[in-house]
Amino acid sequence: MRIRARRTRSPAFEPVAGNGLLDRRILLRSGIALAGSLTATSLARAEPLADDPWSLVQGTTTAPLEPRSRFEKNVKRTLTNPNGGPRTQHARAPLHLLQGTVTPNELHFTIVHNGSPDIDPARHRLVIHGMVRQPLVFTLDKLARYPLTTRMAFVECAGNSAPMFSNEPIQATIQALHGLVSNAEWTGVPLSILLDEAGIDRKAKWVIAEGADTGTLNRSIPLGKCMDDALLALYQNGERIMSGNGYPMRLLLPGFEGNMNVKWLRRLLVTDQPAMTYFESRNYSPLLPDGKAYKFYFINEVKSFITHPSFGHALEGPGYYDISGLAYSGTGRIAKVMVSADAGKSWAQAALQEPRLPMAFTRFRMPWRWDGGPVILQSRAWDEAGNCQPLRAEFVALRGQAQTVPKVTAFTNQHYNSITSWSIDSEGEVKHVYA
Amino acid sequence: MRIRARRTRSPAFEPVAGNGLLDRRILLRSGIALAGSLTATSLARAEPLADDPWSLVQGTTTAPLEPRSRFEKNVKRTLTNPNGGPRTQHARAPLHLLQGTVTPNELHFTIVHNGSPDIDPARHRLVIHGMVRQPLVFTLDKLARYPLTTRMAFVECAGNSAPMFSNEPIQATIQALHGLVSNAEWTGVPLSILLDEAGIDRKAKWVIAEGADTGTLNRSIPLGKCMDDALLALYQNGERIMSGNGYPMRLLLPGFEGNMNVKWLRRLLVTDQPAMTYFESRNYSPLLPDGKAYKFYFINEVKSFITHPSFGHALEGPGYYDISGLAYSGTGRIAKVMVSADAGKSWAQAALQEPRLPMAFTRFRMPWRWDGGPVILQSRAWDEAGNCQPLRAEFVALRGQAQTVPKVTAFTNQHYNSITSWSIDSEGEVKHVYA
Repeated sequence: MRIRARRTRSPAFEPVAGNGLLDRRILLRSGIALAGSLTATSLARAEPLADDPWSLVQGTTTAPLEPRSRFEKNVKRTLTNPNGGPRTQHARAPLHLLQGTVTPNELHFTIVHNGSPDIDPARHRLVIHGMVRQPLVFTLDKLARYPLTTRMAFVECAGNSAPMFSNEPIQATIQALHGLVSNAEWTGVPLSILLDEAGIDRKAKWVIAEGADTGTLNRSIPLGKCMDDALLALYQNGERIMSGNGYPMRLLLPGFEGNMNVKWLRRLLVTDQPAMTYFESRNYSPLLPDGKAYKFYFINEVKSFITHPSFGHALEGPGYYDISGLAYSGTGRIAKVMVSADAGKSWAQAALQEPRLPMAFTRFRMPWRWDGGPVILQSRAWDEAGNCQPLRAEFVALRGQAQTVPKVTAFTNQHYNSITSWSIDSEGEVKHVYA
Repeated sequence: MRIRARRTRSPAFEPVAGNGLLDRRILLRSGIALAGSLTATSLARAEPLADDPWSLVQGTTTAPLEPRSRFEKNVKRTLTNPNGGPRTQHARAPLHLLQGTVTPNELHFTIVHNGSPDIDPARHRLVIHGMVRQPLVFTLDKLARYPLTTRMAFVECAGNSAPMFSNEPIQATIQALHGLVSNAEWTGVPLSILLDEAGIDRKAKWVIAEGADTGTLNRSIPLGKCMDDALLALYQNGERIMSGNGYPMRLLLPGFEGNMNVKWLRRLLVTDQPAMTYFESRNYSPLLPDGKAYKFYFINEVKSFITHPSFGHALEGPGYYDISGLAYSGTGRIAKVMVSADAGKSWAQAALQEPRLPMAFTRFRMPWRWDGGPVILQSRAWDEAGNCQPLRAEFVALRGQAQTVPKVTAFTNQHYNSITSWSIDSEGEVKHVYA
């Protein structure tokens, strides 16, 4: 039997960086199998093949909403306040169990400060008022006639990755460490169209966006952002926005910290100055080691982390592995992700999944042949504006950690975008380390 | 008060085709508001604004899986066999209620012939055997180490749009007419890697793919497709594939008719000839008016339809509307979509939402100012290979309809990719017509 040899050029199977990182181009050449590192089990006899029990009985009946398999019950969000006590409720996305770039709507992270309002879409109104020629009121029916646009975008809580401010690395999954970010396809009306229709006063500089939740969360948005790429989002991954994500409408400010993407949006007040609301003057003002705080900190800066393998996973022994993770930047597209298996001593460039879209998740992948020895995996991303993730030492020097930021106990600081490091020992166990 | 005039160039507000179709470029210029066609209601007094009842009480508590609003209960799939009788079960996607391009996993269409098998992922095996150097068996754990790739792709049932073969236009929603197509982000192992590892005999030409459902649905796939862009898909929109879509693994053959994307995949038999299975020799062989049938008809050809407005929607009166719909082709990217409001007498080019991805939904949009008179809306798509949707007269001449295809009563034919036409009367009522 003659066997097809599909490729004549031999891919680069020699590591291109320490501890077995391979040339990303072997992923394009389908040269992996030739590397002899794969792990399928040979069948001594291919025939006859046995039937599994589920192939011998009538299956389950189709339902109006397609269910998840009962074997995937652990794929769910983790909650900080499951009984709905009168305080903030966080729901973290299980990013260590997901792949690709889309976050399904049921699993998209949410943070709500007063529960999710039960809004009747037929009665909900959006008002644009303040420094405008003519205050306007919009119903959902009227908005259905407006031009829509669709884009992928991540939304990330300003407080995502707060556990990384801990003095010691916390042993926890990606879900616990970085689960307050998600990525979806949003469809909505460009906010500029609605503001144009109201007629913005030339002296206006800000728009105060206010939600219909009981706390009426409000934030001051620079008018420039509102007239640029801001959306009045009506759909999330094709369907109406989910309850906790702002049904029936929210702001989408691509790349801006999550709470500014005001959910359950009911009012846009056009003004010439920011409102200095509780949420911008107290709650979302990252502290610096010298005791001062950023006045405004809009953008989620360039960031990446390895999701596979990560804490909670275990390696089964030496051989080939697909390292992958997520990269994103509030200032544009991801330009490059470098991966290290030796705690940053050497780096290799990861393959980036196309299409790379601005202010959206980019999945990176790195072919790796593990020799079974101890390694420390890291990723570091660059965006197309030239920004890159700071190394941890740089970041801590600038931003501090729990012991260096006054009045901040535990790890309540914000906008962590430095490196995440996973150590893997010779047993294949993954731990979180600072390196 | 001086009002910002954001654009100095005046967009083209004059119709570019019959019955009020506007230049798609006004969508880019945010010039819509200046057209004076928008419909927001002016507020006589902007202050004080009333609170709605849901802003005055604690909201609902966050759950591990984010729920849809109770006001969206009608956004669900329609079922042909809700009690699971011993025959095929169809679940159609509510495309007339969705926007953007992603189909949420709960709403992705499914067709199952024997119910959905309840597969234990720890026990499921995929076997590659036949004309290979070494038969292999793969577990889900082993596959987790293989290189993954991610792409958007539509999957469409060969029998989608069968109601369009009816002799008279059926008055039904897009969900009923075209709901057996959906679009998702799929992540999986390139099939070429697995076949390379098994070592394909040089004389092999086909791969017989077989599912683990009770009927063991099987189809013959050309080896070339398997070695090109075929995926062993493991994830759907980021999470594990849903039950009815093939949990825990299925074939993804971008652009090939749905049933060839074998779900619950358990075996790939490499051969030198097709198996001529029931599903390819009887069930999925479109009939021609002369009584012959296509032997193989793999590709879902270029197609489009307007989803907004469509049957079931009603226009509220003259003025601006956002016409939008879906276009896709099994041979590549969508290159162009033309829209007509006068039953094809004149056409205007629609705006295409980026990114346009091959073998994936592309959303098109057309700005339209309705004067309140009767219109007939149509869309027609071209793909980058130069294929275009046939006009209905051309299509019926070649493929027939119920009265011209022997032994086919009702409308059980396949691969309809011609035009869909919506008439709108002066009351704003939308009807399905042949035009």
